[in-house]
Amino acid sequence: MTEPFEPVTAAILVIGDEVLSGRTRDTNSGHIATYLTGLGIDLKEIRVVSDDEASIVEAVNALRARYTYVFTTGGIGPTHDDITADAIAMAFGVGIDHDPRAVAMLRERFTDPADLNEGRLRMARIPFGAELIANRISKAPGFILGNVMVMAGVPSIMQAMLDVVGPTLKTGVVIESATIRADAKEGDIAMPLAAVQRAHPGVAIGSYPYVDETGFNTNLVLRSRDGEALAAAARAVKAMLSALRK
Amino acid sequence: MTEPFEPVTAAILVIGDEVLSGRTRDTNSGHIATYLTGLGIDLKEIRVVSDDEASIVEAVNALRARYTYVFTTGGIGPTHDDITADAIAMAFGVGIDHDPRAVAMLRERFTDPADLNEGRLRMARIPFGAELIANRISKAPGFILGNVMVMAGVPSIMQAMLDVVGPTLKTGVVIESATIRADAKEGDIAMPLAAVQRAHPGVAIGSYPYVDETGFNTNLVLRSRDGEALAAAARAVKAMLSALRK
Repeated sequence: MTEPFEPVTAAILVIGDEVLSGRTRDTNSGHIATYLTGLGIDLKEIRVVSDDEASIVEAVNALRARYTYVFTTGGIGPTHDDITADAIAMAFGVGIDHDPRAVAMLRERFTDPADLNEGRLRMARIPFGAELIANRISKAPGFILGNVMVMAGVPSIMQAMLDVVGPTLKTGVVIESATIRADAKEGDIAMPLAAVQRAHPGVAIGSYPYVDETGFNTNLVLRSRDGEALAAAARAVKAMLSALRK
Repeated sequence: MTEPFEPVTAAILVIGDEVLSGRTRDTNSGHIATYLTGLGIDLKEIRVVSDDEASIVEAVNALRARYTYVFTTGGIGPTHDDITADAIAMAFGVGIDHDPRAVAMLRERFTDPADLNEGRLRMARIPFGAELIANRISKAPGFILGNVMVMAGVPSIMQAMLDVVGPTLKTGVVIESATIRADAKEGDIAMPLAAVQRAHPGVAIGSYPYVDETGFNTNLVLRSRDGEALAAAARAVKAMLSALRK
């Protein structure tokens, strides 16, 4: 399919040992994926790396060079293991210091100066040149540097930040999709399905097998930015499945 | 901490557009992460890439050069969108063809030759030089090429393959961990916690904030391969928390 527009692409970088240890399940990526799909932005890659500066720097630089946007989650809290802001500054080769705008946001929440301690003030350390992402929940902001959106790891806070960032993003043409349950095993439909795919090159046809109490079954997911092409391919898939059942 | 052993490291490569679209949540990575942690293998990175040959080749080659093991999930079924085996062969620069051992495995399940059609036989296409990973559920094997373990995407089948692969892996010294609920906001403990971390360099102390019905709270997770060092750090964290409550 020729695409008459510039695709908008994205990657997610999840920063966190706790995901890699298996202790915490990463739910943020799924949320961001669904959100971006709704904006017509193509999520191309997700990476999870540990709380290690060199690993973060390398991943940020690889991803920001390749995709329209990079969304990071995690590592921007007040504790010693929160090193994302420093790593982002290093990746961009810029300085980092307490940002007066971020300090002001924290002061809104921590009105007693004793509460705005050195630890909390770490959350106001923002790389030079970044724009802040407001956080209505805990006030400590995320930030945008270049094409990198740096967000919290706590899901409710990350979602609040994404809602702030979302409206500022370039959007693409939303991919439409149709899901057809095959009521057949993948192996029984693989060849005729491949023929449908060849006949409908403007539609991506994915085949997703699953096992449930009734045994092996298959969901066919058709995706396209061209609604008419999608409908034609869906008709062809259904005709193929009907023919097989005869 | 000096580590008197060679760390065993790993990465996971999840292959699948359906995860990137947000349609499917990737549960395999969490399962593999927990499994590897139990073997003392350090999971260092997770990547999710789309069903695109160049993306898979690049990720496989980056990860296999860097880590002891790479575990891939997804893309080894019978349909046209299952391109993992070919991409792995290309990454290693080896040929690929129907493997007689894999064909024999499929014949066990599909005793009627009509059922062992061209689509299903695609699942017997194995890169040259690979060892097979048996699959007690659907018989179509995964495979091991070099340090790359190629497994199915359907969770029950992936888990069955991991159970076959697991006993063959080099293992490390298992990391012990202790979780201490702080009953405090991260920002209130950040600085004294950093002091405990400095005093206990052989223990990694992670601080994981969360929000529940009682408000903001924090789990502190201490991890070390040295049980005595872990216990000492845990005592220090508890003493720090007690002192703060006074």
